Amino acid sequence: MDTLETGLTRAAVWRGDRIDIVEVPIPAPGSGEMVVRVRLATVCGSDLHTVSGRRQAPCPSVLGHESVGEVVAVGADAPARVGDRVVWSVTVTCGECDRCVRGLTAKCRRIRKVGHEAYDSEWALSGGYAEHIVLPLGTAVVVVPETLDDSVAAPAACATATVMAAVERAGDLSGRRVLIGGAGMLGTTAAAVCAHRGAHVLIADPKRARLGQAMSFGALPDDGENVDVVLDFTGATQFIGESLPRLEIAGTLVLAGSVTPGPLLGIDPQQVVRQWWTITGIHNYEPRHLREAIRFLSRTVDRHPWPQLVTDPVPLALIESALQPAPGCKLRVAIAP
Amino acid sequence: MDTLETGLTRAAVWRGDRIDIVEVPIPAPGSGEMVVRVRLATVCGSDLHTVSGRRQAPCPSVLGHESVGEVVAVGADAPARVGDRVVWSVTVTCGECDRCVRGLTAKCRRIRKVGHEAYDSEWALSGGYAEHIVLPLGTAVVVVPETLDDSVAAPAACATATVMAAVERAGDLSGRRVLIGGAGMLGTTAAAVCAHRGAHVLIADPKRARLGQAMSFGALPDDGENVDVVLDFTGATQFIGESLPRLEIAGTLVLAGSVTPGPLLGIDPQQVVRQWWTITGIHNYEPRHLREAIRFLSRTVDRHPWPQLVTDPVPLALIESALQPAPGCKLRVAIAP
Repeated sequence: MDTLETGLTRAAVWRGDRIDIVEVPIPAPGSGEMVVRVRLATVCGSDLHTVSGRRQAPCPSVLGHESVGEVVAVGADAPARVGDRVVWSVTVTCGECDRCVRGLTAKCRRIRKVGHEAYDSEWALSGGYAEHIVLPLGTAVVVVPETLDDSVAAPAACATATVMAAVERAGDLSGRRVLIGGAGMLGTTAAAVCAHRGAHVLIADPKRARLGQAMSFGALPDDGENVDVVLDFTGATQFIGESLPRLEIAGTLVLAGSVTPGPLLGIDPQQVVRQWWTITGIHNYEPRHLREAIRFLSRTVDRHPWPQLVTDPVPLALIESALQPAPGCKLRVAIAP
Repeated sequence: MDTLETGLTRAAVWRGDRIDIVEVPIPAPGSGEMVVRVRLATVCGSDLHTVSGRRQAPCPSVLGHESVGEVVAVGADAPARVGDRVVWSVTVTCGECDRCVRGLTAKCRRIRKVGHEAYDSEWALSGGYAEHIVLPLGTAVVVVPETLDDSVAAPAACATATVMAAVERAGDLSGRRVLIGGAGMLGTTAAAVCAHRGAHVLIADPKRARLGQAMSFGALPDDGENVDVVLDFTGATQFIGESLPRLEIAGTLVLAGSVTPGPLLGIDPQQVVRQWWTITGIHNYEPRHLREAIRFLSRTVDRHPWPQLVTDPVPLALIESALQPAPGCKLRVAIAP
């Protein structure tokens, strides 16, 4: 260890029915590992689903997988240096299995996930809702430029990087008409990414306030006409089913929001064939998408009101009040240890 | 015109309830046009559907869109020379509309199709079931190497080129497990293409004789295990629905057989998302696929028994007997004008 004296940190341990703030020893980082002091964590919708019981997860555990922090201790050959301000991937991958070798690291056969591991495992400090987190070998780490505030950088590790993976599936967007389903954090971010790539961006959301906010990120209200690409972040089969027939020839429907069980989607194979449609799904992302996320946020930091999407920080001690949907038009609640 | 004296040719005109062999004047080719003497035409399943009434088409018309012939007259700037033995695309495209400019020429906004146009139009000699055909400006033409027999080259213009387009959608096949649905002309050809690209190829077909024939083209019987790619040429929603759950992570289902109305396919959006699946459709092909088809047939002419797939030629005068499914294991009936 370089600079950190071994000591105790505080972590929010979710126990199913409550969250306890507990003191935890900070381990010395092994080879390729790092200890990061969390500066800010934002609350992803999937953590709300976990706490509300809609989503299965190891319990007890330290949740939180959208964070920014400062490296305070590193093992040999760690991917960043002490003092670096960094974001890190949700996935921790082996780099050796057939899927990792093929570039499908997000589906690594020995995958572990930040903020998704059991507290009583070898990796107790796995989540961002804590003063410190341990990042094992196999975590992708990206240094954050000075121009990005913590509140803008933190969502990169889940929302922004997932958007990068979803938009990649849609191919070249220059001059294309794109319909985005859902003006939450992902949909709003996707609007900005697609606009930046030269698309004409439409967005659909039943909540007028969120829709209005998305206008500041390059989107226009859905005009109901045909489009070349649909990016779905709603996970609502009804929206997906209604948007599919609006695809132009060689159009692409990217599904990114369907992460909980829902009704089947009926598709007409003849239409898929004759219209050359593509329907594709994306879940999590690859390390390149995290790098692209930080690069994209850096390039557009002055173009869109990114800080508006995140609340003022809530102290870690009040985390239970923070684990609920963001108030008003804010799309992420921030937690500051 | 270079070598052909303007004269009469004979064409098989489909009139809905019968086919007449009629004498037709051969027009002088305009700029970019060619007159081709048909050497051999093979019968695509879609022509059988047209004649049986399962498929809408202009009538009367000269059918036939899988042929090989010799160029006998050319206008200025024609894409081949008198004396060339050639195959040609199904689609005749404008090259100027937004879709052509994007490389989606098969969905050209002013598309015309070989063997699909009205006999009483400006393009009477549009089909391969004739002694001569006129190829307008915008037809893709590929010269056939001497090593390829007419019976091997003729199917290139529909079956083989469509397979090239379908396989392209599946991406890199090296080391991948591919399941092909249907051991007809397209499925059998696809087996050979996928095997040539390094895939482990499985094929499913209820007809044992066709299945046996496909073994000579690089396929093995379906083992029921998971696969990385499904190529469907059956158009049967039941087969498609049963094969989809067998896709591995990041697997691709390519639909190429669903060209007539059929039942809806129910898909689970959450599975598409979490498994990173892609479902994509293909219909017709681009000029590059016709070039790839001829190149592929040339490279594998000694590896597989291609001539086995086509009957001995039936004379044009007996075309009505030819417009029915091929006997035995033959997959294409040949017509020699």
